[in-house]
Amino acid sequence: MVTLDSLIVQAALRKDPVVAVASAADWEVLEAVSIAIAKGIASFMLFDDEKRLKDLIQTDFPQLVNEEKVSIHHAGDNIRAASLSVKAVSNGQANVLMKGNLATSTILKAVLNGEYGLRTGKILSHVAAFEVPGYDRLLFVTDAAMNIAPDLEAKAQIIRNAVSTAHACGVDKPIVAPLAAIETVNPAMIPTTDAASLVVMNQRGQITGCTIDGPLALDIAVSEKAALQKGITGETAGKADILVVPNIEAGNILYKSLMYFANAKVGAVIQGAKVPIVLTSRADSAESKLYSLALAILSTK
Amino acid sequence: MVTLDSLIVQAALRKDPVVAVASAADWEVLEAVSIAIAKGIASFMLFDDEKRLKDLIQTDFPQLVNEEKVSIHHAGDNIRAASLSVKAVSNGQANVLMKGNLATSTILKAVLNGEYGLRTGKILSHVAAFEVPGYDRLLFVTDAAMNIAPDLEAKAQIIRNAVSTAHACGVDKPIVAPLAAIETVNPAMIPTTDAASLVVMNQRGQITGCTIDGPLALDIAVSEKAALQKGITGETAGKADILVVPNIEAGNILYKSLMYFANAKVGAVIQGAKVPIVLTSRADSAESKLYSLALAILSTK
Repeated sequence: MVTLDSLIVQAALRKDPVVAVASAADWEVLEAVSIAIAKGIASFMLFDDEKRLKDLIQTDFPQLVNEEKVSIHHAGDNIRAASLSVKAVSNGQANVLMKGNLATSTILKAVLNGEYGLRTGKILSHVAAFEVPGYDRLLFVTDAAMNIAPDLEAKAQIIRNAVSTAHACGVDKPIVAPLAAIETVNPAMIPTTDAASLVVMNQRGQITGCTIDGPLALDIAVSEKAALQKGITGETAGKADILVVPNIEAGNILYKSLMYFANAKVGAVIQGAKVPIVLTSRADSAESKLYSLALAILSTK
Repeated sequence: MVTLDSLIVQAALRKDPVVAVASAADWEVLEAVSIAIAKGIASFMLFDDEKRLKDLIQTDFPQLVNEEKVSIHHAGDNIRAASLSVKAVSNGQANVLMKGNLATSTILKAVLNGEYGLRTGKILSHVAAFEVPGYDRLLFVTDAAMNIAPDLEAKAQIIRNAVSTAHACGVDKPIVAPLAAIETVNPAMIPTTDAASLVVMNQRGQITGCTIDGPLALDIAVSEKAALQKGITGETAGKADILVVPNIEAGNILYKSLMYFANAKVGAVIQGAKVPIVLTSRADSAESKLYSLALAILSTK
């Protein structure tokens, strides 16, 4: 069974991944860096004001002072830290980008920079991997954080990004459920018509590496018992690996509900750029940041 | 503390409520009727094909055969059962309408009938009351089942319907959280601008009997710790009683997530007609149907 802890073990087997951290002079960020090094999952290039960064490491993270897996790179401000860390990725020095203590918009602006940025032509999307008590598999949720109200084309790309993440985690042929409020196609409910289109795009080879089955309400997607009760049978019923939410509000609510009501654990990553991006927030635990790093490292080519 | 079981106790104190059940010849429906009578919370007028209904009662519910709190009324088909049960409400014989084994659209058509129906000019909306393990209060979720993509005016009415439900349950001044993906107003995200308008509608006395605070992400609405961590303070932070979802997909996902991942218990009712309507589905447990009945009975005038 794939668990979030097993992702850390897998990530530690990768050959020398390097993470570039924009604006790393932050207690929570350095705590995650320190644990990741202890677990042996990556080396880190830290970008920030050199004096502030060195002072913080000296005071609170003495274990990092002579750590060969850490290098410190001066950046006078957040904009500079963002552009230097992105450049470290585009020139091949680093394989993963991580957001430190700066605004998401600042780092994304550098990622999308036409000259040295990390664009691929794909859209960027958020993929979260949840370990939910009582569930025997990881549940991937997408997109709960980047795309506000994706149209069909965006949903197709969001699914492709999530499928490649699932593959990276060892889920070979993920079952993808475009979520809706009902299981039938209703022209008044766009999530149901989009789901129907996504199912056919999958059948026609426009979205590969997965089996798409929808529209499905959440219970039918995750519970074989609920699916059976509704008379929905087949190989995929109740067995979804990837839950595709119709909009950012539904995704955010599912994400928070899993965290706060169901005591789930989570790691998350932004996909669609040249490399995976770790965009954790201050409210995330060090454990969650570590899971996100493992997810990102496993997603590197 | 208000719990779903305490609602049953409260409902049993009401003076002789009568529930009209459309298409009652159904095992699950009669099981709920039987338990409700045993708990002393209501009398029932059952509408369906008389022979089928009597046969089913004779075979599987002998305790209801000579039960004075049950009356049987012949209706040749579902359309007739729907119209007769609605008429029983409109002529004052019953105080609550309950859906039995017929399509939701059939009973709603009778409810909305211009001649004998139960319209009030308000919109109909779904209000669910959840008891979530680890939470010290009922969480009302609206609208997870009736309104697909409510606009601002519809949201205002949805909130009014939920507030009166909360009042009926003894929650005197509920805190209402219009949910969104973020806590700031972003013109690109309608749930955030609608939330801002709802807050001001509350301040201006257009929505009364509650305190509205939003936009809020789910975690900030329900967790004081999460609110504090995000620097959101005040009397309402993390203390929402009523969670207003931006669309039916977000509501359905929250509903199912609470049921399947968080082991919550739920009762639900449709508000906005002349009387509360119980629209349970086959997948609901007998316990859940009982909670819904209690919620409906407490919501009667």
